[in-house]
Amino acid sequence: MEEIKVFCPATIANVSCGFDVLGLALDSVGDEMVVRKIPEKEIRITKIIGQDLPLETGKNVSGVAGLALLEKSDYDGGFEIEIDKRIKPGSGIGSSAASSAGAVWAMNELLGKPFSKLELVQFAMEGEKLASDVAHADNVAPAIYGGFTLVRSYAPLDIVPIPTPDELFATVIHPQIEIKTSDSRKILKTTISLEKGIKQWGNLGGLVAGLFQSDYDLIGRSLEDHIVEPIRSILIPAFDDIKTNAMDAGALGCGISGSGPSIFALSKGENNAQNVAKSMEETYKTIGVPFDIHISKVNIHGVKKLG
Amino acid sequence: MEEIKVFCPATIANVSCGFDVLGLALDSVGDEMVVRKIPEKEIRITKIIGQDLPLETGKNVSGVAGLALLEKSDYDGGFEIEIDKRIKPGSGIGSSAASSAGAVWAMNELLGKPFSKLELVQFAMEGEKLASDVAHADNVAPAIYGGFTLVRSYAPLDIVPIPTPDELFATVIHPQIEIKTSDSRKILKTTISLEKGIKQWGNLGGLVAGLFQSDYDLIGRSLEDHIVEPIRSILIPAFDDIKTNAMDAGALGCGISGSGPSIFALSKGENNAQNVAKSMEETYKTIGVPFDIHISKVNIHGVKKLG
Repeated sequence: MEEIKVFCPATIANVSCGFDVLGLALDSVGDEMVVRKIPEKEIRITKIIGQDLPLETGKNVSGVAGLALLEKSDYDGGFEIEIDKRIKPGSGIGSSAASSAGAVWAMNELLGKPFSKLELVQFAMEGEKLASDVAHADNVAPAIYGGFTLVRSYAPLDIVPIPTPDELFATVIHPQIEIKTSDSRKILKTTISLEKGIKQWGNLGGLVAGLFQSDYDLIGRSLEDHIVEPIRSILIPAFDDIKTNAMDAGALGCGISGSGPSIFALSKGENNAQNVAKSMEETYKTIGVPFDIHISKVNIHGVKKLG
Repeated sequence: MEEIKVFCPATIANVSCGFDVLGLALDSVGDEMVVRKIPEKEIRITKIIGQDLPLETGKNVSGVAGLALLEKSDYDGGFEIEIDKRIKPGSGIGSSAASSAGAVWAMNELLGKPFSKLELVQFAMEGEKLASDVAHADNVAPAIYGGFTLVRSYAPLDIVPIPTPDELFATVIHPQIEIKTSDSRKILKTTISLEKGIKQWGNLGGLVAGLFQSDYDLIGRSLEDHIVEPIRSILIPAFDDIKTNAMDAGALGCGISGSGPSIFALSKGENNAQNVAKSMEETYKTIGVPFDIHISKVNIHGVKKLG
């Protein structure tokens, strides 16, 4: 295989109680990317449509992630990359992670899969480091593994795939304002109360148990965040209204996607997810906030081959 | 049924990364208790052997837990209780919880099971409140549900049973010193760093996933506590040596049982658990610390009928 076209999924990191450890992949929201073998041992970004992003390899997350892979590979050649960028940078649904993860996943396919998923995550994390100064894995891990993933530890890197209940759908609304990940990290406190910590790990344990058992009620009860959401939600227009209305419309839970400004809700079944979307749309239309909105099944495959 | 004899299991709370939320029940360590219907609407403790504990109903945890049950029951009579107290108070393996849980479980059987397990936990928590001023559930929940339990939330009380892998054994060593739960809570800080919090909920998620999948390696990797163990272990003789030697002897993980001073280790298979026990014994013999030691399969039933 000389060339591959892939779908690079958007991802929701944190997922309320899983700050910095949990993420999930989306199915109907993502970039498309063509990766092609070239004889020269280099990475070339030849085309980017949809967004104004740098073509220079060292300044593009897919270029940097690709170089990390190339460095560990015994392949003599290189790759060129064309990106159809559909996920807006700064939206909070893993725009940079989609490009990083997509690039290294595609390259691995073209080389006959010499690398494990864990290694691909490590390469993709180099792209994340370029994007936000932190080599975090909570978006690239679900993009590569699919479904829900838990980043149990960074040293050593330990990714735990968590099963996804069949009927779990996500609704994501993206108010058209930009929050930089680095800015939204700055407003976080470096300490938390032990009491809130206990609630958080209780909820994380509950969420993992709920996902294993397809216990939608337990998933819903566990989707609480007493630590980050109260601080970061201040930066997001009408967050409380969106959340209240989404819950009233039947969401299991609702919170900030990644570092925001996108807001996600999880629901049982597509019907509920659509009702939640309607309530979110209504809320932003009423106060005049422009937005994108997405409804998606949780994507259990992660990056995938197209065509 | 007018009378029932029950086994009331010892329990390990916290289980490293699950501070204040996780617990598990033991199989071969526990009290025995006889509970008998009486015509008067009262609770009488008629006999306690093994330990010097108050017979007065309002001062005995099983009496207080029993009164909480009786108050919610439409039963006209009462109960008398005989306790063969084998778990030493202050050992950190849920001595008070065994009495509280055993009493209400036995009464519920005698009344034809009018109450749910969740309600029994709530009654038993009144006993815990008497014992340590805090109505915590992390020992009484596994004593009543069996296996591993997660206390996801207290308001409302939400107990999540977590499956137990077949070959999971606990080794518990109890150095013969007493630490009061209230004292060992006092030395904890009321705040923690966000960074350590993230590690903790990553580990808790990993442990729950490991238990669901019988993934012993993942269970082992997740049995870490960066928050409470570094502080409380100072109160426990030779904690670091015991832990290092237990890990060298094949334990999956090792930590403080409840608020101590007992130290627990989890192992895959009885053989490993016995090797861990030998290493722990050796450590305390060398430095002359008197101890009790127990090896037990995780008890998936909780309190159970004897005879």
